[in-house]
Amino acid sequence: MTSELERLFEHLRFPSISTDSRHVADVRANAEWLVGQFEGMGMATEIHETPGNPIVIARNEHVGGRRTVLIYGHYDVQPVDPLELWDSAPFEPEIRDGKIWGRGGADNKGQHFVHMLGAEKTIREDGELPVNVIFLIEGEEEIGSPNLVPFLEEHRDELACDIIAVSDTGMVAPGVPTLGYGLRGITCLEVMVKGPSGDLHSGVYGGAVANPATAAARMVASLHEDDGKIAVDGFYDDVIPLEDWEREMWAKVPGASDEDFLKTTGSPESFGEPGYSIAERLWGRPTVEVNGIGSGYQGEGSKTVLPAEAMFKLSCRLVPGQDPAKVQEQVEAHLRKHTPAGVTIEIEKGHSGKAYHNDPHSNYGKAAQRALTTSFGKEPVLIREGGSIPIIQDMKEILGSDSLMLGLALPDCQIHAPNENFAVENFEGGIVMSQALLKELANA
Amino acid sequence: MTSELERLFEHLRFPSISTDSRHVADVRANAEWLVGQFEGMGMATEIHETPGNPIVIARNEHVGGRRTVLIYGHYDVQPVDPLELWDSAPFEPEIRDGKIWGRGGADNKGQHFVHMLGAEKTIREDGELPVNVIFLIEGEEEIGSPNLVPFLEEHRDELACDIIAVSDTGMVAPGVPTLGYGLRGITCLEVMVKGPSGDLHSGVYGGAVANPATAAARMVASLHEDDGKIAVDGFYDDVIPLEDWEREMWAKVPGASDEDFLKTTGSPESFGEPGYSIAERLWGRPTVEVNGIGSGYQGEGSKTVLPAEAMFKLSCRLVPGQDPAKVQEQVEAHLRKHTPAGVTIEIEKGHSGKAYHNDPHSNYGKAAQRALTTSFGKEPVLIREGGSIPIIQDMKEILGSDSLMLGLALPDCQIHAPNENFAVENFEGGIVMSQALLKELANA
Repeated sequence: MTSELERLFEHLRFPSISTDSRHVADVRANAEWLVGQFEGMGMATEIHETPGNPIVIARNEHVGGRRTVLIYGHYDVQPVDPLELWDSAPFEPEIRDGKIWGRGGADNKGQHFVHMLGAEKTIREDGELPVNVIFLIEGEEEIGSPNLVPFLEEHRDELACDIIAVSDTGMVAPGVPTLGYGLRGITCLEVMVKGPSGDLHSGVYGGAVANPATAAARMVASLHEDDGKIAVDGFYDDVIPLEDWEREMWAKVPGASDEDFLKTTGSPESFGEPGYSIAERLWGRPTVEVNGIGSGYQGEGSKTVLPAEAMFKLSCRLVPGQDPAKVQEQVEAHLRKHTPAGVTIEIEKGHSGKAYHNDPHSNYGKAAQRALTTSFGKEPVLIREGGSIPIIQDMKEILGSDSLMLGLALPDCQIHAPNENFAVENFEGGIVMSQALLKELANA
Repeated sequence: MTSELERLFEHLRFPSISTDSRHVADVRANAEWLVGQFEGMGMATEIHETPGNPIVIARNEHVGGRRTVLIYGHYDVQPVDPLELWDSAPFEPEIRDGKIWGRGGADNKGQHFVHMLGAEKTIREDGELPVNVIFLIEGEEEIGSPNLVPFLEEHRDELACDIIAVSDTGMVAPGVPTLGYGLRGITCLEVMVKGPSGDLHSGVYGGAVANPATAAARMVASLHEDDGKIAVDGFYDDVIPLEDWEREMWAKVPGASDEDFLKTTGSPESFGEPGYSIAERLWGRPTVEVNGIGSGYQGEGSKTVLPAEAMFKLSCRLVPGQDPAKVQEQVEAHLRKHTPAGVTIEIEKGHSGKAYHNDPHSNYGKAAQRALTTSFGKEPVLIREGGSIPIIQDMKEILGSDSLMLGLALPDCQIHAPNENFAVENFEGGIVMSQALLKELANA
């Protein structure tokens, strides 16, 4: 194993789960480990405290007249349950079949670490970097980056940059370099449905009072039409339609046919908004998804209970034109309107982020395309992504800079799920790409 | 504390949870404890092995020409989760506010133990019982008594009896003796809904493939009309309507008004089949209830996952006229018809039992009414029950005998839920009632 991989493994061993307060010390230890790495590269490094998890900032010596590139990443990771579905322990990384297996491999430790290693290598080879670089590695991306916007606003001047590079998205297929120019936004809600004051015997009381599990199911069911279209009033009103060139390009993207997506997901058939291909639904159309639902007895055997309450978690993926706060209100209004008789509901609004897109044919976009062509030997495809990185829209608004999305995660990388993995060839190619990128951006 | 209560507490301390295979040794220990109790009363006692949990049989010396009374009970109990909602440990019984708190207090240890203590007291006072008695205490009621029917069939002759006494139902209000003459039946199903082969990121893949949580919710929602009526084809076809005298009596039962039930359940309003009072819905109309539903992430915070699968557990309460196997097939056909595109389902059929009813104005019914009047100082009300004791219908079919349901559990007894309890006055009154019952039945 290369020393680069060994160092990535150190990074992956921190169980830096930001959604779970029991891991707050692990998150901090991971941030401190990053500081050590940047200091080893001779960079000026600071750990910025926030009300939540710290933000790590590192920069080379800045020189007037050079381009300034901000490289964003996050060192926090998603929870790991259901643990029993992992083939190897999530925080004990290992290599099998040309892949690095472990939580955070693709999202996002492996993907930002290639930029750290690329910078380190260029410094070693050339004595210095061709641009001014600011690394910003945060620890709260998986919980919606609640403390990053205040940080950006407070440090707007120090963080001023010409362009931002982010590897936190996907590569459409192995060996197909991918430049992302758009991301879906997100808005989340959690709903608690309450009925009787305690669990009841479903025989003694069933049939006379509303069952919160049934009520929750009816509310969830009301969100979509039978054909998969979203039934929330006004939901599609502000959606900017796809452009023709996008639909034409996406139809030809390797690994992005309906058949490819079905193979990757293992779903028996496609299902979603009528009139769109899977790629179009994922990259250019909004969703309402249930991320979790629970009520009553879910264990072994039967328990004839009429549960006192039920919960469900929703997230909506948003596209350009949609305002997250407005969508959150539309969904809340829909849920209140569709609350069945006999139960009460409480809605907790979760995190939000606008959709983002830029012009992939700008000078910086072309520089990124050249760097991808150099490092992976093929012209990149231009796509949007289905996922959300709200901070990219926030950085656009606060710092005024666009983000180049240089995705390295393959479709079967299993982010947010058991058996997350990152291809060794993309780890190695990513280091080369990062070196080429800084050189191309220096002259863009 | 009386020695009778101390002995009940011993009984309650066994965590005899039959739905959970980890408690199989506790269940057996509880059965062996019962054997000791019966032997202490001088009864001929046997522990009958089954493929599951043992059945305890005890009998006094039978004398020709006397009535034979079979007294049924069960020593197994329901699971105790959610454990955090119990005010005291479920298997460490204690007395507070005139109630015995602990799992099994009302369902069913407290209720069958009064008959054991009543018989013991009569033997002590009179030297013998006025009737031939057979106690049958089983350990699998909460999992549908899978081994009791074969046992009854095998021992049909030894278990022959004139009448059966069962205290495993409710007393409508404190101080209001209650004779039950009907029970709802039950049939259960568990459904597994499968979509993608593993959990997916709801951003990367949301919108293009069916979400099993949404699909499960849509299937559950399809089971009822908006007004609470069951939407399964043919579900009500065989239901025998309520008789006028029943509706008239039930309208006057203390503690059984809509307001009383709402107070007991803590539900904000009633909800159910239109055109019926709560008592009528509970005692005389069938249901489809969700006992549990689960999918995706249910923990703290958010996790933007598109879950690979979802599950839900259903139980239907049935009334006279309905055939459980037919209803199970109707529900299965409905679920298959309403399975959304993009998912597959697996249905596991659970336990079933027919509804039961008898004539509360028969000679034995009148004897029971006299015993209740003697012991509680008031004429009993005549009701059906919403719960299911399938074995009562089975005993009717195999042994040919009807069951007198002498319920002692109060409406707030919390069976199958946290904080199960049994009123001390019903424990003590139950012992008196049991003594009076055997005397009345001797002459019926």
